[in-house]
Amino acid sequence: MNMEEIITLDYGSGGKKTSRLIEKMIVPALDNPALAALGDGAVIEGFPKLAFSTDSFVVDPIFFPGGDIGKLSVCGTVNDIAMCGAEPKYLSCSFIIEEGMALSDLEKIVESIRLQCEKSGVQVVTGDTKVVEKGRGDKIYINTAGIGFVKYPGLDPKNIQPGDSVIVSGTVGDHGTAVMLSRSGMAQVELKSDCAALNGLCEKILDTGAKVRVLRDPTRGGLATSLNEFVENTELSIEIEEKLIPVKPQVQAACDMLGLDPLYCANEGKLICIVAAEDAEKVIAAMHETEEGRDAAVIGSVSDRYPGKLVMQTGFGGRRVLQKLTGAQLPRIC
Amino acid sequence: MNMEEIITLDYGSGGKKTSRLIEKMIVPALDNPALAALGDGAVIEGFPKLAFSTDSFVVDPIFFPGGDIGKLSVCGTVNDIAMCGAEPKYLSCSFIIEEGMALSDLEKIVESIRLQCEKSGVQVVTGDTKVVEKGRGDKIYINTAGIGFVKYPGLDPKNIQPGDSVIVSGTVGDHGTAVMLSRSGMAQVELKSDCAALNGLCEKILDTGAKVRVLRDPTRGGLATSLNEFVENTELSIEIEEKLIPVKPQVQAACDMLGLDPLYCANEGKLICIVAAEDAEKVIAAMHETEEGRDAAVIGSVSDRYPGKLVMQTGFGGRRVLQKLTGAQLPRIC
Repeated sequence: MNMEEIITLDYGSGGKKTSRLIEKMIVPALDNPALAALGDGAVIEGFPKLAFSTDSFVVDPIFFPGGDIGKLSVCGTVNDIAMCGAEPKYLSCSFIIEEGMALSDLEKIVESIRLQCEKSGVQVVTGDTKVVEKGRGDKIYINTAGIGFVKYPGLDPKNIQPGDSVIVSGTVGDHGTAVMLSRSGMAQVELKSDCAALNGLCEKILDTGAKVRVLRDPTRGGLATSLNEFVENTELSIEIEEKLIPVKPQVQAACDMLGLDPLYCANEGKLICIVAAEDAEKVIAAMHETEEGRDAAVIGSVSDRYPGKLVMQTGFGGRRVLQKLTGAQLPRIC
Repeated sequence: MNMEEIITLDYGSGGKKTSRLIEKMIVPALDNPALAALGDGAVIEGFPKLAFSTDSFVVDPIFFPGGDIGKLSVCGTVNDIAMCGAEPKYLSCSFIIEEGMALSDLEKIVESIRLQCEKSGVQVVTGDTKVVEKGRGDKIYINTAGIGFVKYPGLDPKNIQPGDSVIVSGTVGDHGTAVMLSRSGMAQVELKSDCAALNGLCEKILDTGAKVRVLRDPTRGGLATSLNEFVENTELSIEIEEKLIPVKPQVQAACDMLGLDPLYCANEGKLICIVAAEDAEKVIAAMHETEEGRDAAVIGSVSDRYPGKLVMQTGFGGRRVLQKLTGAQLPRIC
């Protein structure tokens, strides 16, 4: 295909140009037998318990330091499945492309999807491509859905108990601030999205045999929103310590400049693990052996002192209730 | 929720407003335990062989005679799974909403999804909601992905043989023309989209025990494009007869007016079934017992006379090669 071309509406017609795009660019890149069959759907092997998840990605800009919308689309769904205690296996991938997008940009994104699938051990087995008129989209939106085989059943916020340790796998706020800076035309070399697949890290954690209550990746809404979700409408509280939460100095500086709070900024390569206190050390040790978990830290614990609330002990010794995110701090961050 | 409200960007922030929308409107409507858990993904029962499919829906307008984008999103994916010889079971559902959409319109669409899921015997078990700025979308785009349990393995265009009968389940071009007329502000009562779930019809066909080679729903690109896909790059041809193809008079009239061809117009409630000639009568009889297949007809057969081609005997006794759709006859039709 001539990569200097741009996408026109007839690439979405379901006719010859659609076939050409799919058969010449997308299918060869994501090469596997299920996808190559080009049927209405893919027929794949099953498993007794499945995890199933979906996300639509509308990030702006589509290329940002540390990743792009293609890599993000794979990691996002892989991570959601991994958080269910499942091994991610199959993805669907659906594009909504705005008329006028450069084919060369689409090609870069498809290559990025290919690479991340390879790294994460998943296959895109089915897909769809639609084209909308100029001004009815923004270059490209991608939806992925994914299927995984549940290997570690029973992860559930309902299992959380007073005394449990709250672990975060690394520095928070990297993705949100990197995308916001990039959108403002202030992309920095030292500030990259943390966009990464966490299925390997999850397996490492769960293979320790620790009493893991729940895993969650704090994306939109950030760490503070995800922790709130665990305890809202329960008798439990989560108490964290500000000084224990890993935040990169350049992320803190960018947040100060943009008027953001790293605890509410999206992450795309971090997880929260709530685990029985006696197993925390073992889990942290296992996480430290991985690239994605090398900065893992216990940041607090579960209690019943402030039912339904997330409470942070600040650096100045005070206590602050952290609510879920209100308003649109960071639109189109993922 | 106050349904006079409109969607603002903070409904997509991942914070409080996102939770409110999901928990107060979407989850109650699509009520089931897997979705209510609100985890990163759903944990569901599995099966030895799965069918997996996805489609993004960008139809314009979102409400049209015979359906809306919600009903279409369920039927489209249910049908793709049914065409794999599978029983559709679980759907994911992901919204990309344009800022400014009326909450009441969203509510109607969610209700339409609920109703169609009930009719088709499927459950939405996981989902996602994003909001984009005004002018970066068009009211709402919906992606569904679906999982089905393969009950009738082996359907494959590779099984098609010379002599096989080509069956279409009913009138063609209804969806495409209904949407186009509606878009032009010329919606007619007598011309409705055929939008319908075909899983019941597929089961009926496959339960006859007939030698069914392949099932396909001719959506974008229409009947002529789907038939082309079966024979392109093979030694086989498909020969059809114009006078055998069911077309509603009002669809033909609308096509004549709009300069369209019903054979290239999208269908959303029709299927093509290629079956061993000796079983065609049995299959037609079974189809006629259903609402969705009551106008089913044999429209031609497979041969090896024109390798790789679809050839139509016209009403005037001539022969015409029908190519795949070229150009964007009907953008944003599904």
